[in-house]
Amino acid sequence: MQTVLIGIDLGGTNIQGAAAVNDTIISKDKLATHSQQGPGTVIKDIAKLVLELAAGKKIQAVGLGLPGLLDVDKGICISSCNLGWHNVHISRELSREIGAPVLIDNDARVAALGEWSRGQAKDCKDFIYLTIGTGVGSGIVINDHLLRGPSWSAGEVGHMILNPQGPECACGNHGCLEALASGTAIAREGRAAAAVNPTSLLAKNLDAIDAASVFAAAGAGDIAATKVIDTAMAWLGLGVANLVNIFNPRLVVIGGGVSLAGEELLAPVRTQVNRYGMKMQRETVTITTSRLGDTAGMVGALELARRGLS
Amino acid sequence: MQTVLIGIDLGGTNIQGAAAVNDTIISKDKLATHSQQGPGTVIKDIAKLVLELAAGKKIQAVGLGLPGLLDVDKGICISSCNLGWHNVHISRELSREIGAPVLIDNDARVAALGEWSRGQAKDCKDFIYLTIGTGVGSGIVINDHLLRGPSWSAGEVGHMILNPQGPECACGNHGCLEALASGTAIAREGRAAAAVNPTSLLAKNLDAIDAASVFAAAGAGDIAATKVIDTAMAWLGLGVANLVNIFNPRLVVIGGGVSLAGEELLAPVRTQVNRYGMKMQRETVTITTSRLGDTAGMVGALELARRGLS
Repeated sequence: MQTVLIGIDLGGTNIQGAAAVNDTIISKDKLATHSQQGPGTVIKDIAKLVLELAAGKKIQAVGLGLPGLLDVDKGICISSCNLGWHNVHISRELSREIGAPVLIDNDARVAALGEWSRGQAKDCKDFIYLTIGTGVGSGIVINDHLLRGPSWSAGEVGHMILNPQGPECACGNHGCLEALASGTAIAREGRAAAAVNPTSLLAKNLDAIDAASVFAAAGAGDIAATKVIDTAMAWLGLGVANLVNIFNPRLVVIGGGVSLAGEELLAPVRTQVNRYGMKMQRETVTITTSRLGDTAGMVGALELARRGLS
Repeated sequence: MQTVLIGIDLGGTNIQGAAAVNDTIISKDKLATHSQQGPGTVIKDIAKLVLELAAGKKIQAVGLGLPGLLDVDKGICISSCNLGWHNVHISRELSREIGAPVLIDNDARVAALGEWSRGQAKDCKDFIYLTIGTGVGSGIVINDHLLRGPSWSAGEVGHMILNPQGPECACGNHGCLEALASGTAIAREGRAAAAVNPTSLLAKNLDAIDAASVFAAAGAGDIAATKVIDTAMAWLGLGVANLVNIFNPRLVVIGGGVSLAGEELLAPVRTQVNRYGMKMQRETVTITTSRLGDTAGMVGALELARRGLS
């Protein structure tokens, strides 16, 4: 009987999944995450998606990436703001529904695993994957090893403080990279700029301001929006420069929604790394955007399942 | 014939060395570094020290820690401000003098190796060794692996920027951890405080102000000195908190001259890590000072020699 591996990327908005036979993806699908209905419903929805993707084939293992604090070894989601979960034994409960082992890891780390196995960082032994979206997360590979840390919390680069006098972060501190350069931060600064610049493109539809619309307005030459983007990208570049000095990676891959800005993001980040990075580090590193885009998590979850078997 | 391993810690001021037979140190000695006489003289001095320490026994290998940019594999010191060296083939030249292989690595990394093999971090698989002296350096062990980076430049945490509006650093940037919390930074701020506080203890002997005297004046209750120390330690603690969030280590060991301040350093650093560290990270980490003090580099260099043989 043919066997499949399943990869699931569980986010606050969507659940993306894929099934693979012998390294080839045979099916993919996506559901909305009904997190307000509690973990029981979400787990049943994931189980339904897994069984649909497997289409009757024997499931060898499921890899699952999800946001929040995890106990990876025990398969527990200790807490997740995005999902509203506390101490959910996700591996055990999902495993019971589908009759196969379930391996979990943090969503940013799983996306890094995706870029590492099939994307921009293929065959790279030293790289940093950054995801810039609602928050800022990372997956860091050093000497061919994905950094997890003894309590599975390594890679929280979004809470590296770059300016203690800076704006407040969701974590309660001030001036974290996430508070300065995430999609949320760009939208917040975009709204603030619109409020004081009534002639800005941003002021035309205040309620619709998000990171994408601020990038779009900046692309159209709007001065207020350009200032917001320049500031956020300068902080992002400074954060990347710090990481480059600390890790001396060969590659930095930037993913997440904000990375869709492409060159508008890469050019200022490279400028900052050239300015603030040390000689050996800046000469060693290449900075690029994700190849897999929003499928990195799903592809990485398949790899998590594959590795869990070895 | 009995064989020995030799460990050498080459600094801008001193050369410290030790010889070990079967894991036991049998001799130690120290010389001044005559770096102004050029690399040839320094290498001859090291060779003399090595032969003296070996006392006629066969030398298996020499481990050497030194400051600067290195090509560890080729045994080249690419550049070192402290030594005034450029492209010195230290391994080859020293090896020729003594007839044994010479392994090199960055001094902070070698000191971390010392704390890892015989000091505060013995048997720890995830720790950060920080050395706070003239500059700020580190050696980082992740998953039982010492982080070097593809161009041997990983661990430059002294050039993590914490405040882009901060004081200028030796590297040319502003607000690096090193510019805010090194011994050099404490002395600089001590001199500045003395200049505007003529009644401060610091003002009594302006020419003699160094980090130790600023700590001493703070310990004696001097208000201006206390403010300098509090500020520097708050920045140090913020830098450590960032590293703790990024690496999720079990242990942070603080060494180097400034770490002699002991609790005066540890208490504020722990306070900052509790304030700025994320829950899992701050609950996992222990913060302490070095056990080996200024012999960490020499002990680590012995370990480098030992590992080079395996």
